[in-house]
Amino acid sequence: MTVYNFCAGPAMLPADVMRSAQQEFLNYQQLGVSVMEISHRSAEYMAVAEEAEQNLRDLMVIPDEYAVLFMHGGARGQFSAIPLNLLGQGEALYLLNGQWSVAAANEADKFGAVVRRDLRTEQGPLDLSLIGDTAGFSYVHYCPNETVDGVAMHDIPQVDSPLVADMSSCILGRELDVSKFALIYAGAQKNVGPAGLAIVIVRKDLLGQADPKTPAILDYALAQKTDSMYNTPPTFAWYLSGEVFKWIKQQGGVAAMQQRNRTKADALYQFIDASDFYRNEIAADFRSEMNVTFQLHDDELNKRFVREAEAAGLKALEGHRMVGGMRASIYNAMPLEGIHALIDFMERFEKAHR
Amino acid sequence: MTVYNFCAGPAMLPADVMRSAQQEFLNYQQLGVSVMEISHRSAEYMAVAEEAEQNLRDLMVIPDEYAVLFMHGGARGQFSAIPLNLLGQGEALYLLNGQWSVAAANEADKFGAVVRRDLRTEQGPLDLSLIGDTAGFSYVHYCPNETVDGVAMHDIPQVDSPLVADMSSCILGRELDVSKFALIYAGAQKNVGPAGLAIVIVRKDLLGQADPKTPAILDYALAQKTDSMYNTPPTFAWYLSGEVFKWIKQQGGVAAMQQRNRTKADALYQFIDASDFYRNEIAADFRSEMNVTFQLHDDELNKRFVREAEAAGLKALEGHRMVGGMRASIYNAMPLEGIHALIDFMERFEKAHR
Repeated sequence: MTVYNFCAGPAMLPADVMRSAQQEFLNYQQLGVSVMEISHRSAEYMAVAEEAEQNLRDLMVIPDEYAVLFMHGGARGQFSAIPLNLLGQGEALYLLNGQWSVAAANEADKFGAVVRRDLRTEQGPLDLSLIGDTAGFSYVHYCPNETVDGVAMHDIPQVDSPLVADMSSCILGRELDVSKFALIYAGAQKNVGPAGLAIVIVRKDLLGQADPKTPAILDYALAQKTDSMYNTPPTFAWYLSGEVFKWIKQQGGVAAMQQRNRTKADALYQFIDASDFYRNEIAADFRSEMNVTFQLHDDELNKRFVREAEAAGLKALEGHRMVGGMRASIYNAMPLEGIHALIDFMERFEKAHR
Repeated sequence: MTVYNFCAGPAMLPADVMRSAQQEFLNYQQLGVSVMEISHRSAEYMAVAEEAEQNLRDLMVIPDEYAVLFMHGGARGQFSAIPLNLLGQGEALYLLNGQWSVAAANEADKFGAVVRRDLRTEQGPLDLSLIGDTAGFSYVHYCPNETVDGVAMHDIPQVDSPLVADMSSCILGRELDVSKFALIYAGAQKNVGPAGLAIVIVRKDLLGQADPKTPAILDYALAQKTDSMYNTPPTFAWYLSGEVFKWIKQQGGVAAMQQRNRTKADALYQFIDASDFYRNEIAADFRSEMNVTFQLHDDELNKRFVREAEAAGLKALEGHRMVGGMRASIYNAMPLEGIHALIDFMERFEKAHR
């Protein structure tokens, strides 16, 4: 049975990457040892690290005035690192549009003054006019793709302070003008690689102002100065992320990913909208291309859907525990065939249970 | 050619564990996906996590009043986490016996009052009488095995404050009375698993007093309350560490590791001591069983040794850049055959170059 894995994270990785990583798992480049068994300071590993950074720079067209950091700890670590490194004595503005942006603001409270503006409305869509005046903040934080809710802000907000974005679930999913941002960060485990790694892309002129109590592993200036090797980095996660970057290049880069992601999401939303059995009530402009949520008319049926889908090889479709229903996470690594298999199953399930 | 990898870290992992991990790399327990592609909250992964903890508890005979935490970030992260969680308004005492204990004290300075006592003497051996009065500290920190220097403190120091030990390079290497410690921690990448994971064993009554500015990913009480899953943990590193714990059990537990490690280290030190070509000047009582350092009479010859050993399949024998010479890291995963191969090579090299 062909298995398609719709897990929101840790998520599936490209099948080609996983097969090749398995092949060289015991013997990396004829060294006779695994890439995870070599020193991060060896010539062989330094080449892995540098190539990964260069490929990410190429893929995202990252300007030279930005540092690219490979850090421990996932996005939650960055929820602390961002205020510790960038807040200073000022205030930070957090735009709220779902669970993760709320969690980021809550963590930032520990380290200084946080202003919140909730963009969510009773009626469902986000109201971007609620962003309001954005001048004079140390930074403005937002989360362009809210994994839990399946809600996205596709347009980059126009703000008058440095813009910080949690792109854990959408980095490399569509083309982006990096120069609009002060900092972009992403936990690796959704669209990049294994859990335990965070990628940080930050304008260098913002570094060096960290709170003196910043833990060394969260200090951006230190990470930049040491090429993210102040301490032993999560070497296997970094290596495998680098393999994913190579794979994206081979597929045609981020533009090709964007086109494929659009096709995948459109197919699924069109099927849901054409049905009166499945529903997704998020306004079209704010629907995520990465996490497609849908519901049935009662919760027992949701549970049954998830169970029967699992048995049919369509894994991890249960919605987040805060939201319920179903969620299909369809990051870069999910092939179009997975979407077709899901839609086929949805059709069969509807016939059987409507 | 058989390769033996003497890297200090990331270090070699048991060959059996690596082979089995390769076999199930794409298809964990017939799920059709990798263990690194499943949710940390799935039943399958929870079983991995719980089994790893239970096996570690069994191996180290960890009493119930201790929490076992699997955290992001390696030992450097713990250099910050320990003072953030345990220092409070008091003072911490750091015993210095090598590079890593010095680094731990330097990081702790950020978070409060640190007292240092340097146990190193001009003559080489450590002077344990320099520990002095240890009452009234929030904790006393030491590093029983200094990887860089090849120096060990085999006896647990008798102290009158909670004892904290950095066991990154010696955890599970010999039997230990955990109840003598307030906290034991270890970066995984030497004697446990892949880089990017830290193991923390901490007496539960010490938790809950963290500095309010403790980043969430470094907060012990939060990690305990959430079974180390407040955020997505480094799932693959945790899984592979669990496989190493199973392997140690199969080998006969920590007692068997201890016996084998003693045999390995004794063979190497006896060969070095019997030679007037190689030298190790660390006093016998303070020699590491995990990191055996040795030098030749000039630095060009050291370099040549490392180069020719590498070509003979004996990898990563170069000493730390702060110390020079050679270092053979011979953690649990290094088989006795590796020691014999190294000694054979040392004999051949001596004959050729003396």
